[in-house]
Amino acid sequence: MSDDRINKSAEEPSVETAELFPPSDRRVFLQGAAATAAALTLPSWTRAASPAGDLDGIRAEIDKRHDEAVKRLQDWIHEPAIAAENRNMNEGCTHMMELLREAGFSGVTKVPTDGHPGVFATLDAGAPRTYALYFMYDVKQFDPAEWSSPPLDAALIDRPGVGKVIVGRGAVNQKGPEATLLAALNAIRSAGRKLPVNLVFVAEGEEEIASPHFHQVVHRPDIAAALGKCNGVYMPYASQGLGGDVTVFLGAKGVVELELISSGEKWGRGPRKDLHSSNKARVDSPAWHLVEALATLVSPDGNDPVVEGFAAKARPLSDSDKKLIADAARRLNEADAKKSMGVERWIHDVSWQESLEMLNSRPTINIEGLVGGYTGPGGKTVLPGRAVAKIDMRLVPDMTAAEAIAALKAHLVKKGFGDIEVKVSGGYDPTTTAADAAIIHAELAVYKSHGIDPIVMPRLAGSWPGCVFTGAPLHLPAGHFGLGHGNGAHAPDEYYLIESANPKVQGMDGAALSHVEFLHELARAT
Amino acid sequence: MSDDRINKSAEEPSVETAELFPPSDRRVFLQGAAATAAALTLPSWTRAASPAGDLDGIRAEIDKRHDEAVKRLQDWIHEPAIAAENRNMNEGCTHMMELLREAGFSGVTKVPTDGHPGVFATLDAGAPRTYALYFMYDVKQFDPAEWSSPPLDAALIDRPGVGKVIVGRGAVNQKGPEATLLAALNAIRSAGRKLPVNLVFVAEGEEEIASPHFHQVVHRPDIAAALGKCNGVYMPYASQGLGGDVTVFLGAKGVVELELISSGEKWGRGPRKDLHSSNKARVDSPAWHLVEALATLVSPDGNDPVVEGFAAKARPLSDSDKKLIADAARRLNEADAKKSMGVERWIHDVSWQESLEMLNSRPTINIEGLVGGYTGPGGKTVLPGRAVAKIDMRLVPDMTAAEAIAALKAHLVKKGFGDIEVKVSGGYDPTTTAADAAIIHAELAVYKSHGIDPIVMPRLAGSWPGCVFTGAPLHLPAGHFGLGHGNGAHAPDEYYLIESANPKVQGMDGAALSHVEFLHELARAT
Repeated sequence: MSDDRINKSAEEPSVETAELFPPSDRRVFLQGAAATAAALTLPSWTRAASPAGDLDGIRAEIDKRHDEAVKRLQDWIHEPAIAAENRNMNEGCTHMMELLREAGFSGVTKVPTDGHPGVFATLDAGAPRTYALYFMYDVKQFDPAEWSSPPLDAALIDRPGVGKVIVGRGAVNQKGPEATLLAALNAIRSAGRKLPVNLVFVAEGEEEIASPHFHQVVHRPDIAAALGKCNGVYMPYASQGLGGDVTVFLGAKGVVELELISSGEKWGRGPRKDLHSSNKARVDSPAWHLVEALATLVSPDGNDPVVEGFAAKARPLSDSDKKLIADAARRLNEADAKKSMGVERWIHDVSWQESLEMLNSRPTINIEGLVGGYTGPGGKTVLPGRAVAKIDMRLVPDMTAAEAIAALKAHLVKKGFGDIEVKVSGGYDPTTTAADAAIIHAELAVYKSHGIDPIVMPRLAGSWPGCVFTGAPLHLPAGHFGLGHGNGAHAPDEYYLIESANPKVQGMDGAALSHVEFLHELARAT
Repeated sequence: MSDDRINKSAEEPSVETAELFPPSDRRVFLQGAAATAAALTLPSWTRAASPAGDLDGIRAEIDKRHDEAVKRLQDWIHEPAIAAENRNMNEGCTHMMELLREAGFSGVTKVPTDGHPGVFATLDAGAPRTYALYFMYDVKQFDPAEWSSPPLDAALIDRPGVGKVIVGRGAVNQKGPEATLLAALNAIRSAGRKLPVNLVFVAEGEEEIASPHFHQVVHRPDIAAALGKCNGVYMPYASQGLGGDVTVFLGAKGVVELELISSGEKWGRGPRKDLHSSNKARVDSPAWHLVEALATLVSPDGNDPVVEGFAAKARPLSDSDKKLIADAARRLNEADAKKSMGVERWIHDVSWQESLEMLNSRPTINIEGLVGGYTGPGGKTVLPGRAVAKIDMRLVPDMTAAEAIAALKAHLVKKGFGDIEVKVSGGYDPTTTAADAAIIHAELAVYKSHGIDPIVMPRLAGSWPGCVFTGAPLHLPAGHFGLGHGNGAHAPDEYYLIESANPKVQGMDGAALSHVEFLHELARAT
């Protein structure tokens, strides 16, 4: 799902996390973090079963294999698999499988779906605990004309104030962090160490089109059985902002993406194709029909969904949710957030804390795009035969994607717009992982061992398909993890940090080491 | 104005005239015309001052110069002047001027405007009467990929059932008919004959962008003075449908084209640029704001403008208008019209005759296009900072473009949408010429002399900038004239008929001769 996943939003000043945590906020709360760093306990594995020497050996191996790891990432970026364009999908799947074999996985399997294939693999370390990894091998579309460095070149470029970065499509979303985790696994193995946990690997090639078939991968009996033995699942990502800060989200909203299509064809009124606009005097307009239908979906200010039953199951924020948000509101700067978002006022002119509560708790119906008739420069006198509104709906627990779609369809019928086609392109339910889950403990422990005091949010207002893991039948705790930094997911000049200019922000090697630490922490966290 | 002019609509099965008069209707009414042809009087000039020998000499000259005339048109098509793209405008103006000098005009002058230049010229034949000619030297944009023959090649191609046609951008809109009239003038001169009327020539290079500066040409004191001496003004066009039929319109609706632009920038709410859509939970949406504003402009079925004062001055159809329409309704076939338009029902399920009355009499507010946020394939989770509705408004007498725009702006302010920008790109008032004007008499006389009984309509539901002539201060009768046929104005594979396969439809030479006949008729019609 484009721009939607927790990892992307956390990395990208132009989207969610930055909007929540603009640079100056980051500084403020890092100062707070530094002040309390002395009080932090070190991760348990550094104290117990993982002697410092163990880590040093792996660190040395990561360092030794730096160029190899960078080249692995660059080679991967050279070959973009883009589901929306049906580009390189089989090659991308094969490439993913080769990377897994190289990293020591066995039983690396291509998993056919009704769409593009997924990948399944396992790595049995003979460890007591097993965790699942969730990867994507696809990347977002791109327009090379918009890039300052060609998006498939994966060139190493100096970015002032940031460091040496790889610029390329997929650099941070998601190949960079994924290649970093693979580098960690390779280093552990070549250092002669055993993995502290067993791994079950699942990947999809349709993440950027809202994961329409990923459930077919996860729910395949043998894969579901393997996942059922896991203690949790995570996706590698680059969690750090430019100041080194990290936010941990305990879940994410669900999402449905759809098109509302009004057409003369389906309506039986208006033209079946574009007609000269002079005929508006005697011919109905599918474009006006769409406008009238849209206007029934929300309150007159465009903010509150008024689709009957749509939000019936929306669960309000709990007291502990509100506490987390109040804490975040205190630590973050509203003016900077608004500035980075290009926004002057919140809906209904609410306060900063309320805006964060709304972000966490409100279901939404949003117009992503409007497309109808003539869309070029200037005008063209047509009466369009068809008009489309691209909509996304965000869902909070206990809403479901299926129920949201059903409510929308029933609403349109009831209001006299039953002819308007509801074309769902993707979506999934909200996802939640308990704050006391071992995987969350492990995340926080590693971050804190680096002097970082993450902000914890009840959920991301964006979305990722975690529900396939956290929902029935698996009910796995799910998260994202990784030090490191990148930016520009879905945008031109997407980058991933290789060598950091800021000691508080990890480059690729430091990020790889954080994965080693995390795997050890997972082996022990309860 | 794209697709809007009387000439284009009369030529093009895909737009107005064909929608009014589908092929089968044409056959029906031509049979009627043939039945009454014996009763028609010949044009007065064939009976009086223009002996048959006179016409024969010119006809011979047209025939002799056929290849030259075709080449003149082809060369002109090779050089497209496109105002919307600022392409070849000076070259196009110069080309126009050269064609005029060749045709015997004097004082050929480039007329600067605040936009692209116009052209002014005169041809004094020492005749008692003077008529004005209105030309355009610009053509519509095109995408060569959509054409079966390259749009600038102007290739002569056999079109089954139609004849030999020139395919190219501007072929029928408007270079073909214009080159045909020039061929007529050249033939008259080289046959050693005098023009029966003096000519005042005005041309613009911005017709396809709604003539935003043409009034600066027409109202320049010396040009206005020359036009003030004219008895009327006309534009050459290819009036014939595939069956040979012709419709004469006594006027045209006015039009305003504009964009309604909703933006966070102007609104002060919502984002100034596209934002991640998860923020819809706490940020206002300029796209929803636009939808809500649009919904206030028309009745809930999207058909009746409800902008206060917008249609206050709309004059109902007169009894004579209604008679003309009733006659047209009898002669035309509703089912065929609906089929060619791709329409099953009229607004409010009115009758055929009512649909024609609405077409002639109703002011409209039409959505030409909707553009906002992400418009590509599939979805993209953005909260757009800006959304645009492209609107055209059609005006009937005595509405004016200025008053319609003012009413729209006042309405938006009153309804709480004063922040929405109203960006007018072009437009002009309605135009009307009296049924008993000499120029209309002359048109009908020539058509009838060819056995054609034109349908006469009160006005075209499309638009052309005739108001600059018919309005103050000139008050000239204005029309379009020309036998001949073409199709595809603004569309791919636009063509103009050179050699006709149907004896009822004139090719380029026959069309040129019709202009000779018309000029003689103008010299005499009262």
